[in-house]
Amino acid sequence: MAAPSQPTRIGLAGLAVMGQNLALNIAEKGFPISVYNRTTSKVDETVERAKVEGNLPVYGFHDPESFVNSVQKPRVIIMLVKAGAPVDQTIKTLSAYMEKGDCIIDGGNEWYENTERREKAMAELGLLYLGMGVSGGEEGARNGPSLMPGGSFDAYKYIEDILVKVAAQVDSGPCVTYIGKGGSGNFVKMVHNGIEYGDMQLISEAYDVLRSVGKLSNEELKDVFSEWNKGELLSFLIEITADIFGIKDDKGEGYLVDKVLDKTGMKGTGKWTVQQAADLSVAAPTIASSLDSRFLSGLKEERVKAAEVFKSGGFGDILADQEVDKKKLIDDVRQALYASKICSYAQGMNLIRAKSVEKGWDLTLGELARIWKGGCIIRAIFLDRIKQAYDRNADLANLLVDPEFAKEIIDRQAAWRRVVCRAINSGISVPGMSSSLAYFDTYRRSRVPANLVQAQRDYFGAHTYERVDMEGSFHTEWFKIAKQSKI
Amino acid sequence: MAAPSQPTRIGLAGLAVMGQNLALNIAEKGFPISVYNRTTSKVDETVERAKVEGNLPVYGFHDPESFVNSVQKPRVIIMLVKAGAPVDQTIKTLSAYMEKGDCIIDGGNEWYENTERREKAMAELGLLYLGMGVSGGEEGARNGPSLMPGGSFDAYKYIEDILVKVAAQVDSGPCVTYIGKGGSGNFVKMVHNGIEYGDMQLISEAYDVLRSVGKLSNEELKDVFSEWNKGELLSFLIEITADIFGIKDDKGEGYLVDKVLDKTGMKGTGKWTVQQAADLSVAAPTIASSLDSRFLSGLKEERVKAAEVFKSGGFGDILADQEVDKKKLIDDVRQALYASKICSYAQGMNLIRAKSVEKGWDLTLGELARIWKGGCIIRAIFLDRIKQAYDRNADLANLLVDPEFAKEIIDRQAAWRRVVCRAINSGISVPGMSSSLAYFDTYRRSRVPANLVQAQRDYFGAHTYERVDMEGSFHTEWFKIAKQSKI
Repeated sequence: MAAPSQPTRIGLAGLAVMGQNLALNIAEKGFPISVYNRTTSKVDETVERAKVEGNLPVYGFHDPESFVNSVQKPRVIIMLVKAGAPVDQTIKTLSAYMEKGDCIIDGGNEWYENTERREKAMAELGLLYLGMGVSGGEEGARNGPSLMPGGSFDAYKYIEDILVKVAAQVDSGPCVTYIGKGGSGNFVKMVHNGIEYGDMQLISEAYDVLRSVGKLSNEELKDVFSEWNKGELLSFLIEITADIFGIKDDKGEGYLVDKVLDKTGMKGTGKWTVQQAADLSVAAPTIASSLDSRFLSGLKEERVKAAEVFKSGGFGDILADQEVDKKKLIDDVRQALYASKICSYAQGMNLIRAKSVEKGWDLTLGELARIWKGGCIIRAIFLDRIKQAYDRNADLANLLVDPEFAKEIIDRQAAWRRVVCRAINSGISVPGMSSSLAYFDTYRRSRVPANLVQAQRDYFGAHTYERVDMEGSFHTEWFKIAKQSKI
Repeated sequence: MAAPSQPTRIGLAGLAVMGQNLALNIAEKGFPISVYNRTTSKVDETVERAKVEGNLPVYGFHDPESFVNSVQKPRVIIMLVKAGAPVDQTIKTLSAYMEKGDCIIDGGNEWYENTERREKAMAELGLLYLGMGVSGGEEGARNGPSLMPGGSFDAYKYIEDILVKVAAQVDSGPCVTYIGKGGSGNFVKMVHNGIEYGDMQLISEAYDVLRSVGKLSNEELKDVFSEWNKGELLSFLIEITADIFGIKDDKGEGYLVDKVLDKTGMKGTGKWTVQQAADLSVAAPTIASSLDSRFLSGLKEERVKAAEVFKSGGFGDILADQEVDKKKLIDDVRQALYASKICSYAQGMNLIRAKSVEKGWDLTLGELARIWKGGCIIRAIFLDRIKQAYDRNADLANLLVDPEFAKEIIDRQAAWRRVVCRAINSGISVPGMSSSLAYFDTYRRSRVPANLVQAQRDYFGAHTYERVDMEGSFHTEWFKIAKQSKI
């Protein structure tokens, strides 16, 4: 497309696949867009795609100055570049040509504190700044992602008309809302990714139990996950899992999933989620177990050697050859997966709330569940239930004690325990399901054995303790008393 | 004691209980010591204690200048003040009177990066610096702690004669060694504390299962732990646990442990350990579960409410009223505790190694196990086994695959699985034992379901995957293929 006859509505810098797709999405919704990339071939590629995909109003620029100048004032430019230094570099390049009141939006998976630092620096130049989580992968960016913009509310209002059209559309509206101040958009996206790690881990455990204990074939697994995708587990990740089991290897015999190496990569947001949970004193064991599983998956060579050590010690990969009622097992695993999922989301939501309180962001958990209903990787019918739970009680201490979720867990707990024990007795690790169950069984108990731990701390470190029956802080000379009684 | 007739050998600033006790310990070993505290009453208190506890050569000073000047050159001054800003403040105060070649030692639980920052700043003034982990609580500081000094090797050599006498003494020598450069002493102490969290958590779970499922009384628990302390579990923490169960409530009927509120405090090193594990891609689920359990223990009010919700939903705290063979249960729990402990230490040791590689510290894991054999909170006969494992193979990938530990696990795995399943079926959470078991069952499997997770990542994010049967990085258009097959 030739140079625009009048200023475009918005600009986008950074034309890897995500950037290209988001630009095309914006143009398709009727907003003329300028695009720029340091490697200029990407600019031409994007313009060519815009032509092919329906003569969309995408205008390419090979230099940052004319790119910035082509956008109507106040200018809004979305960056989709690698988090960290590349973002700083791009800001430097673009801001040189921007004017007071213009706005830069970072659409990457950025660490929220970097966004807060940049927002302050931009404010000193009179520029507005948004850190916007974008979820949905390449496909979502093109056809409707879930958008989590945080930072300048003025900037948000100025482009709200674009975002509500570009975002995924579900029954309860477009999958975008103003998240909150500062780096809240990035933080929420980070936790979204942590929850995504948890979902993927739990699904992989369900797969492992069905395959290893239930001896299900890939075709059977495909049918099971397709069936599950019609019910309470209906979600993007269950859907693509069913797809995956159906795909044959194009380089040999059998199914592709069996040829994929069992090593999982990662990009940092899961790690940040776990570290933030520790920082905020929020237990997030399901999400942490998914991170640990990725770490251990990476030790493929060590695992192969360890398998040899224990095989020669007399036990194989799968321990028992128990009777298996396939149908029952499948039904049990479905329930275990669902119950574990509730725990995982409870952890993620409570992590967001803890941060919101710390930072004064005033985030609305139900709204977050709503904008995750479409577009993003964790999109699922399940999120509607979470939204309803917070609609019922915005101050809900934990999803587990929402009356509906509590009932669902009560109905499923027997199956959940059966699956975890079955896995344990077969030597199949289900760290996500078992840590979820431990989370539940700890949270729902009025008395846990922490009294002993606190007594130990007081014994060796004089850390004091509280009592169940009276107010105050107490210290006991445990050692002296024990010594006396031994005499 | 009057002013010293000649310069003292060393100085100590910060006279809370730990500082007082360490000063008395040093003096008792024959090293005249100067002591200082900002609140001067603590100085007089320490000098008085020195008199009472055997006319020990402790010399008190009320102002920092005369304190520093009283120490022989090159001067060495140990600080035992609160980590963070108080350390910076104390350094500022003392260094004003110190000269080139003098040395400051921080004996607190400091974040290792703070030590590295200070070491650099001190070097610019010509001063040496050590960050020294001190474990053993008040009692250890007085009678022999485990010492983990890291930083300037020259400074270490200068006070080595003091440290080897002050430290706890065990069959294999004094519990001190030069750890390594920079903040390695603090880092190793941090992981020591993380392991300590894990040990305490596992013991509390053993207690919970024996109490809740086995219905053991406190007297029975005391006997069980006393018995355990004669065997493979022999350790300070098992010993004090036995003591705790025997102590009666001095404010009412029954036993004190039952009156202690089930809320566990914490001071930060456990959190750092978990965060560092995530940073270094090391799975440390047992240690993480102990941190999560402390977090959840803190939510006492929420837990009481949750218990009501689920009680009204039809299930109580303990689910089943199964037959219990007490003797068998006790024996199983002992084995489960031991096997879980191996996993916890494997995680801690691998975390230290990962950091050592990252920082080029060149730490010797077997030596660390050796200096933990006495003085510190995790002291145990078990550490001898760890030392032996690293003596057999310094490059051991994981303690789990050491032939001796592997054999011990093989012998105990059936009991371990029984205990975890028993707990799960009783509604008793054992997050430490179950996450340890999941760690083991993941690490020892040559094939884990991470292939599915990686396939999912490639499906929605084009993150590519490796294959089991050929070299290279692959990407599949999963969505397109699945779509075609649906038509």
